[in-house]
Amino acid sequence: MYSAGTGIGVGLLGLGLVGSAVARALGRRVDSPSGSCLQLIGGLVRDRDKLRDVPIDRKAIHSDPSAILNDPQVSIVVELMGGEDPAFAYLKQAIRAGKHVVTANKELLSTRGRELLNMAAEHGVHLEYEASVGGGVPIIGPLSNDLQANEVISLRGIINGTSNYILTRMEADGASFADALNEAQDLGYAEADPSSDVDGLDALYKMVILARIAFRTELPLSSIHCEGIRGVNAKDFRYANSLGYTIKLLAVARHEKDGLLARVHPALVPLSVPMATVSGVLNAVEVEGDLVGSLWFQGRGAGADPTASAVIGYIIRIARACLAGNVHTYDAISDNGLPIVTMDKHVCQYYMCIEALDQPGVLAKIAGILGELEISIHSVMQMDEDGEQGTADLVIMTHPACEDKMRAAVARIRDLDVVVSLANPLRAESYGSIG
Amino acid sequence: MYSAGTGIGVGLLGLGLVGSAVARALGRRVDSPSGSCLQLIGGLVRDRDKLRDVPIDRKAIHSDPSAILNDPQVSIVVELMGGEDPAFAYLKQAIRAGKHVVTANKELLSTRGRELLNMAAEHGVHLEYEASVGGGVPIIGPLSNDLQANEVISLRGIINGTSNYILTRMEADGASFADALNEAQDLGYAEADPSSDVDGLDALYKMVILARIAFRTELPLSSIHCEGIRGVNAKDFRYANSLGYTIKLLAVARHEKDGLLARVHPALVPLSVPMATVSGVLNAVEVEGDLVGSLWFQGRGAGADPTASAVIGYIIRIARACLAGNVHTYDAISDNGLPIVTMDKHVCQYYMCIEALDQPGVLAKIAGILGELEISIHSVMQMDEDGEQGTADLVIMTHPACEDKMRAAVARIRDLDVVVSLANPLRAESYGSIG
Repeated sequence: MYSAGTGIGVGLLGLGLVGSAVARALGRRVDSPSGSCLQLIGGLVRDRDKLRDVPIDRKAIHSDPSAILNDPQVSIVVELMGGEDPAFAYLKQAIRAGKHVVTANKELLSTRGRELLNMAAEHGVHLEYEASVGGGVPIIGPLSNDLQANEVISLRGIINGTSNYILTRMEADGASFADALNEAQDLGYAEADPSSDVDGLDALYKMVILARIAFRTELPLSSIHCEGIRGVNAKDFRYANSLGYTIKLLAVARHEKDGLLARVHPALVPLSVPMATVSGVLNAVEVEGDLVGSLWFQGRGAGADPTASAVIGYIIRIARACLAGNVHTYDAISDNGLPIVTMDKHVCQYYMCIEALDQPGVLAKIAGILGELEISIHSVMQMDEDGEQGTADLVIMTHPACEDKMRAAVARIRDLDVVVSLANPLRAESYGSIG
Repeated sequence: MYSAGTGIGVGLLGLGLVGSAVARALGRRVDSPSGSCLQLIGGLVRDRDKLRDVPIDRKAIHSDPSAILNDPQVSIVVELMGGEDPAFAYLKQAIRAGKHVVTANKELLSTRGRELLNMAAEHGVHLEYEASVGGGVPIIGPLSNDLQANEVISLRGIINGTSNYILTRMEADGASFADALNEAQDLGYAEADPSSDVDGLDALYKMVILARIAFRTELPLSSIHCEGIRGVNAKDFRYANSLGYTIKLLAVARHEKDGLLARVHPALVPLSVPMATVSGVLNAVEVEGDLVGSLWFQGRGAGADPTASAVIGYIIRIARACLAGNVHTYDAISDNGLPIVTMDKHVCQYYMCIEALDQPGVLAKIAGILGELEISIHSVMQMDEDGEQGTADLVIMTHPACEDKMRAAVARIRDLDVVVSLANPLRAESYGSIG
């Protein structure tokens, strides 16, 4: 299938679902009219004896990384193993050996991306990572190239398909978080340990990568408010729907007055805006630029074939540049990013679902606390009275309020003896005139 | 503002709304951290005496094209005049002189694009035209680069903001086509001669450009079914809505069994799909690729600033490539595109609004004709009875039927003496499982 000794050599680190899809698709594309002349040299795996449906000779499948990283025939190293270790060491070695790199590794690119990009700049090689965010949805390319004339005002998106699938199932079927998670795991959308997806970490990694490009600012993971979806209950969808909202795990980075504020958390999204219709494993990113206005990118954010689409797009691009004798130049990443703002002074409307004793005076106590903290109430609904337990849910929507005051209010409300439980409030996302 | 004698020189052909926006934005970006070193050398205009709000010295504004095209300081020629003539001659001259070209000219790129691209390939210069389709929405870049690993199955979009604005107003206010057009002209969305927009020509140009990239196929303008929106009536929106549809001017190119079918026409779009929500001057393009699945790009498809965003994105890109000493290589455009299929055998559901005499037997006559041509009826509604005139509208939705049979049916129905009028039927766009 591959004419030996010709073309730009590609080595694959990892032959799991994505790696195998890349190998198969490369097999189909090698002689395509795209004009690239590619040669798949070999792959690195943990277990050589596992059977794989890939068009690579068994002799070219190795468990020793140096068989790929030290092979002078390999010009492009494609890393699809995931995780920081040992991927970082492998890519460092590849870059230092003058090999180009294509990777889908969001964790690595968020935590060590700056280091790797500077290393690639120093060695004059490509380091391409479009597939690390949004699967096959082009977003890193457009932000890096097409939109570079803009000052980006905000990025806002649904960039974790697993959690979006779980939330979609909870809303559609009234399923509990645990049941929806089990279903996602059965379908292969969620891993055995789902924490990276459902606790927001995966979205956090991706937002760090996008913000680096869009705002030329390095966001330490710890600077970003990150809250997952474990605290969202099935009944919250019913209550939110009746207020005109759905619930989505949003990742947002916005150039605010004082600097860059990034946050990942479940949010109330008005049913009337496009973001509310992004369902299942779809991803969507909304970019607002000063020249271009609001742009919307949507598609399958995960899966072997969409990821292979992004990976191979860049393999071809690098191969063409190599054949033309072009060198790739990166800007050194600036140390002068935007100042980073924390959530403390973030202002938005809050949704609270307070399970309380169904007796007179309860609302007065809660409203009293909110009033003392200068938080105005927009609406109150009493829902799901439980005559047997003598409890009911008080669903409160506030007017825009400040995060730090809201935190103080929640602590005091939880302390009330008439309150049975109060889950973390959900922030309502503001859509201004766009909605 | 520009440090003379340094940087990559840019010459602007045309200082209208878009040209002025580009000049102003370049002024702001020249010293931006994008790292590009650009120098705005001058501009070409028809009338030098007209006052313009641009950061270009009066002495650098010329009415003689050779002042830009023969200036050795100009490395990048930016063409924002529009139209085929004299833009073609100017760009030919620029390319032959080894200058890179950035253009927003959709007419030129659709009719002479192949010629210009081959010329640019021969002379080793960039010819970038992202701004010619979708304004600031990145679509040519993603199709050319990010998605090149895919076999594209279909492109479908709303790519003419003017006609979409008119249709949106007709639907929202029940305005007539003429009134909505007047409003669009007053707001500057439509030109004094609106035919390119409302007759579908503008969308046609753009689809030819996109199909060239996505399907590696050259579509002659005459091979594409092109139908504008003049025949759509305000009442069609009412009727379509009651059937679960809205009406949009769609541009579609699809790799069918026998080849590539491209078409531009007003279509019934199910209210439940995202395309139905693309309102006003927004553009949206849906790309379906074999690996990536369905992708969605949306944003402001026209306007000076969004267009400037796309133009400057590519100016910066070219400047970087120049500074790195890279050459640009295009594939020669293949002569072996897909076979081109005409509409004759296209199958879809059709919507017909037949104004007929309100008397017994009319439906039998119409249904008889449809039956003889093997066209099944999905639904019939009698609407808007006019007792005074003795007429009513028969709104017929067919089951999927073949274009050539439908044409024959329309001719025969129009000949019936009980039929007052029958506007061109509207095709219902099929969304299969996507919707």
